[in-house]
Amino acid sequence: MSKQLTAGVVGGSGFTGGELLRLLDGHPNFEVEQATSRSYERKTVGHVHPNLRHLDLRFTSPADLESVDVLFTATPHGVSMEHIDAFQEAADTVVDLSADFRLSEEAQYDEWYDGHICPEYLDKSEYALPELNRENLPGADLIAAGGCNATATILGLKPLFDAEILSGDEQVVVDVKVGSSEGGAGASKASSHAERSGIVRPYAPTGHRHEAEIQEYLGLSVSFTVHAVDMVRGAAATCHVFPDDPVSKGDMWKAFRGTYGDEPFMRTVAGGGGVYRYPEPKSVAGTNFGEVGFEIDPTNGRLVVFSAIDNMMKGSAGQAVHAANIALGLEETAGLEFTGLHPVGSP
Amino acid sequence: MSKQLTAGVVGGSGFTGGELLRLLDGHPNFEVEQATSRSYERKTVGHVHPNLRHLDLRFTSPADLESVDVLFTATPHGVSMEHIDAFQEAADTVVDLSADFRLSEEAQYDEWYDGHICPEYLDKSEYALPELNRENLPGADLIAAGGCNATATILGLKPLFDAEILSGDEQVVVDVKVGSSEGGAGASKASSHAERSGIVRPYAPTGHRHEAEIQEYLGLSVSFTVHAVDMVRGAAATCHVFPDDPVSKGDMWKAFRGTYGDEPFMRTVAGGGGVYRYPEPKSVAGTNFGEVGFEIDPTNGRLVVFSAIDNMMKGSAGQAVHAANIALGLEETAGLEFTGLHPVGSP
Amino acid sequence: MSKQLTAGVVGGSGFTGGELLRLLDGHPNFEVEQATSRSYERKTVGHVHPNLRHLDLRFTSPADLESVDVLFTATPHGVSMEHIDAFQEAADTVVDLSADFRLSEEAQYDEWYDGHICPEYLDKSEYALPELNRENLPGADLIAAGGCNATATILGLKPLFDAEILSGDEQVVVDVKVGSSEGGAGASKASSHAERSGIVRPYAPTGHRHEAEIQEYLGLSVSFTVHAVDMVRGAAATCHVFPDDPVSKGDMWKAFRGTYGDEPFMRTVAGGGGVYRYPEPKSVAGTNFGEVGFEIDPTNGRLVVFSAIDNMMKGSAGQAVHAANIALGLEETAGLEFTGLHPVGSP
Amino acid sequence: MSKQLTAGVVGGSGFTGGELLRLLDGHPNFEVEQATSRSYERKTVGHVHPNLRHLDLRFTSPADLESVDVLFTATPHGVSMEHIDAFQEAADTVVDLSADFRLSEEAQYDEWYDGHICPEYLDKSEYALPELNRENLPGADLIAAGGCNATATILGLKPLFDAEILSGDEQVVVDVKVGSSEGGAGASKASSHAERSGIVRPYAPTGHRHEAEIQEYLGLSVSFTVHAVDMVRGAAATCHVFPDDPVSKGDMWKAFRGTYGDEPFMRTVAGGGGVYRYPEPKSVAGTNFGEVGFEIDPTNGRLVVFSAIDNMMKGSAGQAVHAANIALGLEETAGLEFTGLHPVGSP
Repeated sequence: MSKQLTAGVVGGSGFTGGELLRLLDGHPNFEVEQATSRSYERKTVGHVHPNLRHLDLRFTSPADLESVDVLFTATPHGVSMEHIDAFQEAADTVVDLSADFRLSEEAQYDEWYDGHICPEYLDKSEYALPELNRENLPGADLIAAGGCNATATILGLKPLFDAEILSGDEQVVVDVKVGSSEGGAGASKASSHAERSGIVRPYAPTGHRHEAEIQEYLGLSVSFTVHAVDMVRGAAATCHVFPDDPVSKGDMWKAFRGTYGDEPFMRTVAGGGGVYRYPEPKSVAGTNFGEVGFEIDPTNGRLVVFSAIDNMMKGSAGQAVHAANIALGLEETAGLEFTGLHPVGSP
Repeated sequence: MSKQLTAGVVGGSGFTGGELLRLLDGHPNFEVEQATSRSYERKTVGHVHPNLRHLDLRFTSPADLESVDVLFTATPHGVSMEHIDAFQEAADTVVDLSADFRLSEEAQYDEWYDGHICPEYLDKSEYALPELNRENLPGADLIAAGGCNATATILGLKPLFDAEILSGDEQVVVDVKVGSSEGGAGASKASSHAERSGIVRPYAPTGHRHEAEIQEYLGLSVSFTVHAVDMVRGAAATCHVFPDDPVSKGDMWKAFRGTYGDEPFMRTVAGGGGVYRYPEPKSVAGTNFGEVGFEIDPTNGRLVVFSAIDNMMKGSAGQAVHAANIALGLEETAGLEFTGLHPVGSP
Repeated sequence: MSKQLTAGVVGGSGFTGGELLRLLDGHPNFEVEQATSRSYERKTVGHVHPNLRHLDLRFTSPADLESVDVLFTATPHGVSMEHIDAFQEAADTVVDLSADFRLSEEAQYDEWYDGHICPEYLDKSEYALPELNRENLPGADLIAAGGCNATATILGLKPLFDAEILSGDEQVVVDVKVGSSEGGAGASKASSHAERSGIVRPYAPTGHRHEAEIQEYLGLSVSFTVHAVDMVRGAAATCHVFPDDPVSKGDMWKAFRGTYGDEPFMRTVAGGGGVYRYPEPKSVAGTNFGEVGFEIDPTNGRLVVFSAIDNMMKGSAGQAVHAANIALGLEETAGLEFTGLHPVGSP
Repeated sequence: MSKQLTAGVVGGSGFTGGELLRLLDGHPNFEVEQATSRSYERKTVGHVHPNLRHLDLRFTSPADLESVDVLFTATPHGVSMEHIDAFQEAADTVVDLSADFRLSEEAQYDEWYDGHICPEYLDKSEYALPELNRENLPGADLIAAGGCNATATILGLKPLFDAEILSGDEQVVVDVKVGSSEGGAGASKASSHAERSGIVRPYAPTGHRHEAEIQEYLGLSVSFTVHAVDMVRGAAATCHVFPDDPVSKGDMWKAFRGTYGDEPFMRTVAGGGGVYRYPEPKSVAGTNFGEVGFEIDPTNGRLVVFSAIDNMMKGSAGQAVHAANIALGLEETAGLEFTGLHPVGSP
């Protein structure tokens, strides 16, 4: 617990910004020096995030950026690229939670987003997901946290690639269910409680931008559809996989154990008795854990792979802190030990 | 409104039994003579169903079956087949809501269920879904209401068969999300509020029995996975379809209009603006309406077909009354006019 | 079913406006000629209200008001009073759902609201609640639907005044729990799904404007506190009453039967077995029914009176249609027969 | 962090038992040696509590009790008193979470419960709530965690007694709203998801047993009514207080600061801007924090005091660990530092 580093959060009044502040507050190695917010300047952090009322910290303007050891930037997509030079100047290590630096090729970025203004950073940034990219994180100066739905999907399917059950040419349908926190802290008619309660709403039937990350990091073009359902936290990916050759339960267990056997935040949950027999967002709500599991369809050999994360944790702020821990040579699990609650409602 | 018929409900204290009683109470042509319940004998119907407190009706023993014009039997699977002779004796028209008479072949039944004790009835019964089987319903004496998840799936995919976009050999993944009423009125640890709130829970990853109905009535072997989510009423099927040949939006609109253009209870919802751009269970909660819609994935030609119903209405009791209306020569929409609520919570 | 009248709705894109359109669409005596909306001019009614997709009706500008037999005005508070002359010119019968004409005295209005611009209408308007004011509704030309929380409270306590258990000088605490539809169709941070799910939030600890109606119509100054809870529809008032003299259960039953014995939309629910032993918003969701009930605290003689309504129905649009039926000499329950669903989620 | 103590949990498969195991697992001074369960003997702890899948611990029979330094007993009411001698023999410090030892007088116990079989323990046990009874906890060998609703109420009202705003003779109405976890891990029709979703259900209109604790520890006879609402965790008490003399906002702030100014787990939240202006269960979900706040009714001087806790933490397991920390001379906040999540759904 000796190493003490200073940290800042840009965009601290948003949902993932608040989650970063919560994690950094409880982290043994970080001291939060600054949290910026355009909308809540001079308000206390607890004014926006009631779970942080104990913090003696007020939001400052993003224009007044202070130097810190590590800067977490939780800005809307497109904003970080505008300020990346200032961010890099303020901190040796920048961890960005937007989509701005997730992809490594400009052509890919332009296909899925709107035109990158500093494409030279794209291949310099490191994708944050440790289960995918741990070896490149130590010493990284620009780290890009993955998209939540991409993260859930990649975590679910990676073992199949590692075990050569999948090569990238197969048919894979990914049907995702997400909570309302994924939409961020803004207000809209569609996200109002009366309109959004109790829904199963196709919000991205096709063309979801996270496909690009899956394409890049797994080398797989997925058939991707995202639904909004009635929970606050959580992303659950159901991956329907059609392998070329028959796969046994033993193959699958071997694949998942092989990939995640030593991972501190990954659990494989597949069958057994009781209420919680497969991955569920509820089981990991509030935590940096990811649950993955599977079943094999006896009628046609289809593999059904389930993956569940907390979109704001493993799918964003937790992943960012996890990557920063590795980048900075800290204990990998520092600040991320919370194991979740049972029972818990809409997590 | 002249024709007056007597009706009975076996299994009136369950969820679909209550829904039948509600529909029959508001139906211009039916008079409920009897509602049976093993557990609530002599209790008022309103004791169990608070929305029916105005009914002057008490549950009687299923042993004391009265003669009626039409008998709706909402029993657990396996019970109706034991009593089918008594049911047929009590009423000229029997509409069964269990799975006992949904399939037409014994071999199929035995593969998915436990062994049929009166297989001779299997090919005599008519599948209730009017959009599929309207022409065979008039005068039918044994009608079997479809399973809710099968109904949602069949409604979503039928236009593609009618328009010869699908022939039955294609790859089709159906990812279903359902509400808690699907589990029935019993109590279990998994269905308790604390354990079931806010979930995305894979409850039938593979091997769901409704696959058998889809196989029989569409001639399609689907890759079928069912999830429980946080709503009470509703079944939403997302069908990921990979047609052999490219399909345009125009083809799809033509297909859906062709199949459902004249159907009183079907709506095609596909895009447009506003909050409700695709089918959603919320939009049809409490009604006999089904919503279907689609999107085409530009990257690989995948068709994403959405279908949403109220599992207890279009997926069970409403379908049963709809079929009975047709069987008995009544106005097809009689007693089923309720158009639903907006806004409504977890429907 | 002979009498046919034309109807219009001003403010048809809001929640209560949509509810009015739904009720009028299903009403045997009304034909909707016009629905106005400033924000959704030229859009179909179904664009906003997915349950009304079958209606062939587009919103028009409120500036182009047509003449109708009855005009329902579902505008924000303060708007109706600006346009009351135009409303009265357009229709012989105007039913206003805002707070503008609920109180009869200018001084009272000014104390709770912001200054009335046409106070001469205050004592000309009739309070819509039939259980309170039925005798004054026939032929009324301006009717003001009550506030939902006031309606719930008045319905709960009226029997105690009728039976002289209360005189108006007693201590009465009213603790109200309401759903998100009460906040209307607008979007705000506080009403977003992520911030509003799962709450028990004191939103009007003191000073709620509905106190004024309770004061006027019951002659009782209540201690009034309103909480937002996780449901969409519903207002539940728990009234803690301290009578001067001991009251027995028999007295209470007599009081409630005396007041509501002949009322078509009121139910007294007090004890008994089963799950639904007292009034609950779920039991009346989507309906014009009100449930009232009570218990007596043996330790101190406190009366606990429960009252539950659907805030958008009995607490607004349903009450408005009920009052219009009486005003226009129609069947009192016409268009309001829906008895609700069981089970139903957050109603 | 030097002191290492062994701990056991009796009744580890229930909700509060699971919460204890979670807290003890993350506690720097405790090592869990044993968790008992009659129903889940030999199953892993993670089989029941999915958030504890990382624990290498299996339930054992309560008959095989091991010696530990501190034993937490989370049994149904009436069970602990049967086994208290065994518990005391197994551990020097016993913290019981049932109602068996909360009251100090046999007459009181018998009035509210069913007859105590070892009343001699009643006045030997210490009430766990540190904010009320901190000075008597060090060295205590039998500690009784308070009831959740009583805890919420006592925490809300204690400042008024400390500041002599209340003496115990005043009229106080306490209207409580609770989540489904309060009913425990068992299954019942009333607690099933379909029946319990979206409710405001009066579940204890009068006669709730927690009144007895409030009477004993505050010296106040309250008018107490408890409602079940749609959340999983949380108890929110709204206390309507009628003081004999006028009380100012300054008086109230002084009272709350005086009582809780130095308390590590108490926060006073009263007004201010933003979404979270008063105590809410959501704001403390998963934590040992209690929020209290107030408003003054200008019309009649009524004080409205709000109190919100997580019923399983501050209202049970968290309170138990907090008390154990004090009893055993540990850091008071050890193992209880989690500050909660934002946003969070039905907590």
